[in-house]
Amino acid sequence: MAKAEILSIGTELLLGQILNSNSQFLSAELAELGIDCLWHSTVGDNKDRIKEALRTALGRVDIVLTTGGLGPTVDDLTMECLSELFAVPMVFDDQIMADIQSKFGRRGMRMPESNRKQALRPEGSRLLPNEFGTAPGVIWELGAELIEAAQIGQPERLRVILTFPGVPSEMRSMWKATARPYLTSTFGDSVIWSCDLKHYGIGESALAEMHSEELGSANPTVAPLAGRGECRLRVTAKAPTLPEAKAMAQPVIERIRAKSGTLCYGIDDDKLESVVGDLLAARGLTVAFAESCTGGLVSKKLTDIPGSSRYVKLNIVSYSNQAKEELLGVHEYILNAKGAVSAESAHAMATGIKRLARCDIGVAVTGIAGPDGGTAEKPVGLVYLALVAEHFQADKRLKFPPEMGRSEIRHRTASEALNMVRLFLLDPAKLSRTSSR
Amino acid sequence: MAKAEILSIGTELLLGQILNSNSQFLSAELAELGIDCLWHSTVGDNKDRIKEALRTALGRVDIVLTTGGLGPTVDDLTMECLSELFAVPMVFDDQIMADIQSKFGRRGMRMPESNRKQALRPEGSRLLPNEFGTAPGVIWELGAELIEAAQIGQPERLRVILTFPGVPSEMRSMWKATARPYLTSTFGDSVIWSCDLKHYGIGESALAEMHSEELGSANPTVAPLAGRGECRLRVTAKAPTLPEAKAMAQPVIERIRAKSGTLCYGIDDDKLESVVGDLLAARGLTVAFAESCTGGLVSKKLTDIPGSSRYVKLNIVSYSNQAKEELLGVHEYILNAKGAVSAESAHAMATGIKRLARCDIGVAVTGIAGPDGGTAEKPVGLVYLALVAEHFQADKRLKFPPEMGRSEIRHRTASEALNMVRLFLLDPAKLSRTSSR
Repeated sequence: MAKAEILSIGTELLLGQILNSNSQFLSAELAELGIDCLWHSTVGDNKDRIKEALRTALGRVDIVLTTGGLGPTVDDLTMECLSELFAVPMVFDDQIMADIQSKFGRRGMRMPESNRKQALRPEGSRLLPNEFGTAPGVIWELGAELIEAAQIGQPERLRVILTFPGVPSEMRSMWKATARPYLTSTFGDSVIWSCDLKHYGIGESALAEMHSEELGSANPTVAPLAGRGECRLRVTAKAPTLPEAKAMAQPVIERIRAKSGTLCYGIDDDKLESVVGDLLAARGLTVAFAESCTGGLVSKKLTDIPGSSRYVKLNIVSYSNQAKEELLGVHEYILNAKGAVSAESAHAMATGIKRLARCDIGVAVTGIAGPDGGTAEKPVGLVYLALVAEHFQADKRLKFPPEMGRSEIRHRTASEALNMVRLFLLDPAKLSRTSSR
Repeated sequence: MAKAEILSIGTELLLGQILNSNSQFLSAELAELGIDCLWHSTVGDNKDRIKEALRTALGRVDIVLTTGGLGPTVDDLTMECLSELFAVPMVFDDQIMADIQSKFGRRGMRMPESNRKQALRPEGSRLLPNEFGTAPGVIWELGAELIEAAQIGQPERLRVILTFPGVPSEMRSMWKATARPYLTSTFGDSVIWSCDLKHYGIGESALAEMHSEELGSANPTVAPLAGRGECRLRVTAKAPTLPEAKAMAQPVIERIRAKSGTLCYGIDDDKLESVVGDLLAARGLTVAFAESCTGGLVSKKLTDIPGSSRYVKLNIVSYSNQAKEELLGVHEYILNAKGAVSAESAHAMATGIKRLARCDIGVAVTGIAGPDGGTAEKPVGLVYLALVAEHFQADKRLKFPPEMGRSEIRHRTASEALNMVRLFLLDPAKLSRTSSR
């Protein structure tokens, strides 16, 4: 199994000014390729320390991925350090120069003289193209004589350096387009493919118990992962090729989905709001929300999804009792006798928004997100949800611990409300069973 | 200046399963203390590599901060590695054991046998207490004889190791309560204090030009930083004590605020929505939003702020023309002749929401967030804002590049809408001047 190290270069990382998301991205990608990432290192824009870090990394692994230090300023030292470490001259690439100039041209700008530097790379390395930025990287397979001359040890092992800019979007596109295929063909004897089966409405340990037979298998492996109010089962298969890995995982995925039923809401990048949106669009139905404690969060999530105007027509954030009464028609008696945070109010709000928006499904959220506004009888974290459709109604009472905090209580309430719509669309009988009053 | 390295321990980091936010937090804190963080390293749960990393770190810096590897499982190796590296026995701390047991007791749980391990630490190290978790750390000042015996070089320099658990909240509270005061008194000859002056409505280079005299100074330094549609001026002062550093920065901060005027909306953690909220609450005014393309995002931001029910009563997400017409009273003629995305519609929506919510300020947002729905005449990225108050009205046309994407267009539109309310509350004359039609 090939070994790798990720070397991040940039003083801003050591000052804590930016978060090192590049290392996480590359690590997850290396794991998928079956390459063992053993170290992360971060060093500032300092020649001696960059060279020391490169030397250490090449001494202990086969593949070194660097990020950062490819810009046009005097602080950008990666190429210079590589050239000095191996005592190899820099070569100037006319075609890269032309490409950088044309990138400036397209933005209607003249290229500053300092950018000429970005067309230089150590002799013997080859280009790792950067489609979107002006900082190309290199892929450099270091021959035994270079390793020997630099006294890095074990010259018989193939050593490769790949350099990326620090800008995450550029790094990622270079990884996908060139670096990943290169590493797969050079070091990959197997491919690791994984997919996350996203679950809502069940805890991590209960989910693990439900699928305990799957959890023991060696390949594909199945592992539970806890998230923010939801959890995932990650299925990971290892095989010589990607189609084989996928084929191995497929029956496991199908068994899990069959057993989980509606507890499993989607795969990988699916979100509750995108799944709800797809279901609504597929059935030609519309939904409307009356939100109190979530204050627009459910509406924001629903409309994050492109094309949501097909099923979202009108949502209302009714923070005040006046809005609940005048606009949604919640009766004064209910507000006075039961309070705005009650099953009765939630139901009346859902009925009101359905009528007002003339939609198929009306949903209401009312609760106390805190930090203030709680009482002994109705503490912070108490939330009522209601869903009303033709010949159907359901409601649910939620109780979050107050110490969860306003932001998390709002987030989880929004997820519950979206999940309520999902269950109504998939299995209304189940929704009424799980509702409490 | 003392030198430091942050060593993160945990295979999950090398697999890319979690983001290393601990290193960023500790780096920023070290910078404030005037301690030079020169390296970050990350290593998996592997004894040989942890010892190698500890040895390397202690060879090149004075202070090593480790995170992770303090849990109760066989994978948690930090203390064992320290004890082996310096050939020092582990001691069992009865008081720590009692503390861990009582923490389990308070949660109504019996302590598993494996947690006994967390009461062990290398002889000679002292406790770094963990108020909230069961994994205490150590502060270990390594004497010259230990450094010499382990052959780490330069035994005359004081070397210190501080160990923290990987759980960010526990690490942060341990840092604040014990580690930071310890490092300040042991290594601190100066304190670095900084604050961010947050600006909206001006670009980074224009802001730098406006304050060019300040940008040249050595202490305090002033540096512009670009953000997401806004920018900051960071004022950083270095002095022997915190009060002295703050006092040095104060006149610079005051000069910048005076010159920036309403372009500067706040400091450090201030957000446009919190500043708007404070202004509304202070004046006893209420606001209501009619959102189309932002789909509830402005409402969500406003109600993120605790206590926002004082000034938010009712917001409406009017995605459909029907909602704009029936509920907000936008005339059919306007919708047909000018379209829902027009200055006229925005104005009618703002008037409608002000009337409906019976509030002091009505604001409307209507536009095309994309990716679909754009036309040659009204492309993706076109947005109209309107604000209506008693004897006052203003509107603004925004044009974002379509390639900015749905999420960013919505985010920036929400910021513009909030800033519009802020300017109205601070300086209505300026708002009408900057509005375009």
